[in-house]
Amino acid sequence: MTTSTVLLVADLTGVAVFAASGASAAVAKRLDLFGVVFVGVVAALGGGIFRDLVINEVPPLAFADWRYAATAAATAAAVFWLHPQLARLRTTVLVLDAAGLGLFTVTGTLKALDAHVPAVGACMIGVLTAIGGGLGRDLLTGEIPVVLRREIYALAALAGSILVALLSAYGQAHAAGLIVAIAFVFVLRLVALRRRWSAPVATLRPPRTGTRGPRG
Amino acid sequence: MTTSTVLLVADLTGVAVFAASGASAAVAKRLDLFGVVFVGVVAALGGGIFRDLVINEVPPLAFADWRYAATAAATAAAVFWLHPQLARLRTTVLVLDAAGLGLFTVTGTLKALDAHVPAVGACMIGVLTAIGGGLGRDLLTGEIPVVLRREIYALAALAGSILVALLSAYGQAHAAGLIVAIAFVFVLRLVALRRRWSAPVATLRPPRTGTRGPRG
Amino acid sequence: MTTSTVLLVADLTGVAVFAASGASAAVAKRLDLFGVVFVGVVAALGGGIFRDLVINEVPPLAFADWRYAATAAATAAAVFWLHPQLARLRTTVLVLDAAGLGLFTVTGTLKALDAHVPAVGACMIGVLTAIGGGLGRDLLTGEIPVVLRREIYALAALAGSILVALLSAYGQAHAAGLIVAIAFVFVLRLVALRRRWSAPVATLRPPRTGTRGPRG
Repeated sequence: MTTSTVLLVADLTGVAVFAASGASAAVAKRLDLFGVVFVGVVAALGGGIFRDLVINEVPPLAFADWRYAATAAATAAAVFWLHPQLARLRTTVLVLDAAGLGLFTVTGTLKALDAHVPAVGACMIGVLTAIGGGLGRDLLTGEIPVVLRREIYALAALAGSILVALLSAYGQAHAAGLIVAIAFVFVLRLVALRRRWSAPVATLRPPRTGTRGPRG
Repeated sequence: MTTSTVLLVADLTGVAVFAASGASAAVAKRLDLFGVVFVGVVAALGGGIFRDLVINEVPPLAFADWRYAATAAATAAAVFWLHPQLARLRTTVLVLDAAGLGLFTVTGTLKALDAHVPAVGACMIGVLTAIGGGLGRDLLTGEIPVVLRREIYALAALAGSILVALLSAYGQAHAAGLIVAIAFVFVLRLVALRRRWSAPVATLRPPRTGTRGPRG
Repeated sequence: MTTSTVLLVADLTGVAVFAASGASAAVAKRLDLFGVVFVGVVAALGGGIFRDLVINEVPPLAFADWRYAATAAATAAAVFWLHPQLARLRTTVLVLDAAGLGLFTVTGTLKALDAHVPAVGACMIGVLTAIGGGLGRDLLTGEIPVVLRREIYALAALAGSILVALLSAYGQAHAAGLIVAIAFVFVLRLVALRRRWSAPVATLRPPRTGTRGPRG
């Protein structure tokens, strides 16, 4: 009872954090109140909806349990009204976002394993659960997905999902192990942010040198 | 028999209207005939495909009944050839689009309720059925979804889906009640268009005032 | 045994080719290693995931069989490191891409027919299987989908899927018939490339003539 309550609170915290990130992006694009709430809801629930579709848990939890949508919509609306203050809380948001990343990675991977998806597929589903909402947010607001460009964001999720798959394979996927996995993603993400770690970028052939011209 | 025929005709009318909106957007982007038909089909059928996936009605109706695809493709092709004339019918298209919005909201919400999705989730699915095709259209053509920016568009759908959920909860979801709900969305959308109602937009901090510079 | 091995090799070849196309597009957008692999995996597996969701084969093959993800990820990573050399292989890539188009069209259509989707829907699913990954690639990298603009690309897939549906209706959907269908799409696509065939583009009203101005 207590455990499931803790899990629910943790899950809804992740939903709220991702709703806030989506709503902030939408405010920056000057969408109206509905647009801000919509992008917030997609960012908060999109990854989980995709996860539930591929493991055939229908209707997806986001539609089956009203608390998910309510948390997402209320958070996004709050961001709409409060965003000047939130701008000053940027660090807090990044920290919470890292926590959400850890949580969604672990729950996504675990649900896929429980649905008998093999380990590699379960890790992919875990990563997509964690980054899927952000992908939806960026597609809706017309950006190349930040998750594809930002420091180690998705790689932290991938590392966490592999850890969960290993824990599960060795029968250690109980509460303590999972909390370790969540903390692992969380810390990895924060350290990456702090140190500005990033994956290598391909070198393109250098542009031809020209003495003139705006694009020379 | 008569009722189901009326419903089918109404449903296909909605498909045709949304196909026309998708095809018009694709023509404006100078896509070729296939591209215009493809965007038209996505705009017409995308919302319903998403709806059927989340309520586990597979294969989705758009693939199971050829009349949906045929109506969408034929309408989009017609727009491709006739679009200069259609431009003059802009008001007609807006009115039909409002009718399609009402229809898809009501049928989407109702199908979700019939599939035992709780009321809040069913309303979300109803709204996504109604606006999903337009989202697909805008993503394909590289626009920030108009539905997130336009006057009260999705809010009219949301109001209609809540009305359907209430009618269903009180056992009044029969033909007359549903027609009222469709008309409600239709009129709400038209009045919003007419009066240029829109949801509030967040105020951003004003740019710093500068005496010079193009971005000052 | 031999047949299924041949099919698997052919399928994974298609996955590799589409992964290479996705990775190349991501390199051009200067994404980091993870981003390149991610876009490559989406391009390679996206169409098949959509196909499996609509025919209710869950979890989708891309998650159920690790060889699909491994092939896609390894190919995309190779492109990341080797892309200057690959640029010189552009013709080879186009030829392989045409082969992938044929393969995914035929397997997609066939799987849909096997899942009892009616012929028109099965053809739509076959086309979406073949072009879906490329759509995902272009959405992620912020482009209007090339498949909607390029010469006869999707039309070759549509013609191939109709051929498969006809073969199936007349009981000829055995290995030889399917190889003919794959070759048909392959050749049609290559001839279209060679001759620069394309579907007609709608004429827009001419811009107003002006004597001055950058957009006159």
